[in-house]
Amino acid sequence: MDSRVLRVREWLRALQDRVLEAFVREDPTARLTEDAWERPGGGGGLTRVIADGEVFERGAVNFSQVHGDTLPPAATRQRPELAGRPFHALGVSVVVHPLNPRVPTSHCNVRYFTAGAPGEIPAWWFGGGFDLTPCYGFESDTRDWHRAAAALCEEFGDDVYSRFKEWCDRYFFLPHRNEARGVGGLFFDDLNEWGFDRCERFARRVGNGYVDAYLPIVRRRRATPWTERERDFQLLRRGRYVEFNLVHDRGTLFGLQSGGRTESILTSLPPLVRWRYDWQPAPGSAEATLVEQFLRPRDWLAA
Amino acid sequence: MDSRVLRVREWLRALQDRVLEAFVREDPTARLTEDAWERPGGGGGLTRVIADGEVFERGAVNFSQVHGDTLPPAATRQRPELAGRPFHALGVSVVVHPLNPRVPTSHCNVRYFTAGAPGEIPAWWFGGGFDLTPCYGFESDTRDWHRAAAALCEEFGDDVYSRFKEWCDRYFFLPHRNEARGVGGLFFDDLNEWGFDRCERFARRVGNGYVDAYLPIVRRRRATPWTERERDFQLLRRGRYVEFNLVHDRGTLFGLQSGGRTESILTSLPPLVRWRYDWQPAPGSAEATLVEQFLRPRDWLAA
Repeated sequence: MDSRVLRVREWLRALQDRVLEAFVREDPTARLTEDAWERPGGGGGLTRVIADGEVFERGAVNFSQVHGDTLPPAATRQRPELAGRPFHALGVSVVVHPLNPRVPTSHCNVRYFTAGAPGEIPAWWFGGGFDLTPCYGFESDTRDWHRAAAALCEEFGDDVYSRFKEWCDRYFFLPHRNEARGVGGLFFDDLNEWGFDRCERFARRVGNGYVDAYLPIVRRRRATPWTERERDFQLLRRGRYVEFNLVHDRGTLFGLQSGGRTESILTSLPPLVRWRYDWQPAPGSAEATLVEQFLRPRDWLAA
Repeated sequence: MDSRVLRVREWLRALQDRVLEAFVREDPTARLTEDAWERPGGGGGLTRVIADGEVFERGAVNFSQVHGDTLPPAATRQRPELAGRPFHALGVSVVVHPLNPRVPTSHCNVRYFTAGAPGEIPAWWFGGGFDLTPCYGFESDTRDWHRAAAALCEEFGDDVYSRFKEWCDRYFFLPHRNEARGVGGLFFDDLNEWGFDRCERFARRVGNGYVDAYLPIVRRRRATPWTERERDFQLLRRGRYVEFNLVHDRGTLFGLQSGGRTESILTSLPPLVRWRYDWQPAPGSAEATLVEQFLRPRDWLAA
């Protein structure tokens, strides 16, 4: 392992601790499960699941480090010539599904890849981001989330937030539903244009910024009472989350293609999900507002 | 439309009526919804959903007929040269998810494709089959199901049942779980080797044979009492069904790729589904027996 991999690995493991500890402080009633696993083809991971809490119905904070002889095609779009090369991939992936329908689901990922044949200088890149998936939309939550995203991008360039915000809108989109998965955030991939040190600092900033952006929203909404109708809507919305992750998500496909640990990869799926044929929200309802006002790309920093 | 398309269309519509009527007779308490839809690119369908019954938690019996200028790649594996050609596809697709965990989920599909450029004699083929997905395994049900499958294949050749049974075992398999979706049945695709009339007769036989094979099993199990633990296991098993359909199923991918009607395509998904991290059945339990004894390819006709 080269020294960059070791260095990234160290802060990724620290990030995993940081996020899990923040979740546990927020919801000490939740049950924790931890599994260290090895991948037969090389590498392994540490899966940490938080479940059945007052706040978090289920969440996972996963670290994995996999290496192999042939990079799966889902791993890089910009450099298809690297598919099939020896690779090393490490990352932390977080998804949390709250119990209260007013508390949004959130997702964060940071990852580092190297790929290249022996004797070559390996290609490397960072990827990641974070995004928010509310079931009931709140303008203030969404603005705060995007303000936090913009603030952490600021030192990296004037266009960084808007580029990665738009990338997030494009990525987390369900064409077969013609709607966004959520209200977005940041998404970046194949990032190496700033040199290693600056790219690494950016990826760390994204990882560390995630809980700081998310938990204030959790605290604001967690005590709101909710009804069975709202719970039902949440289960239907979770169906869209499953559709995105299993049909479109490159991270999920990469994991399954690269012989990752299925139970760890699929911790992103919600604990309980409903599908109902052709369900439509009542016009003017909060349920209709979600799709009409929130699940469309918008400028959340505009006054 | 050529006369073969018209002829196939007629019996597919009759098959749709036949299956839905049989479900309604079996469960008159269920609620029916019917939607005729048109596809902007050409064609349309009739979606018929049965829901919230004593026996059937949800099922759908769908007819669709789509045509377009470019055949999606998911439509044919054996003749990739036809991808991108003008095509005509029609079929009936049935999935039913019973409420009682002792009553197995079942699926049946028959479809007819033609593809080819103007001025060419178009290629044509039939595809389809039926398969059973129990949550609790019963040897007698599985044997009866396969005996019915073998009986309807008999006049078409000595090896037809075993070829299409094995194809079904290969097709309905989840590599990321290393288990079968269910106990199989029949699966065939790109079928034209017997000439049109014989292939058509076989496809009709499969479509018509499905309810006759399935409903006796429903009747045998529907009155069995069930516990919350069994219901919980059913919701977990349904998660595997969703994983297969969204990650692997070519029919689902073809529908989504060809601009089919999303709500109709996704009627195959179960109404309520659970995922739980790394759940394992107790050794020797009925839940463990399902995976160990039933979700592996077996010769169900052996004495």
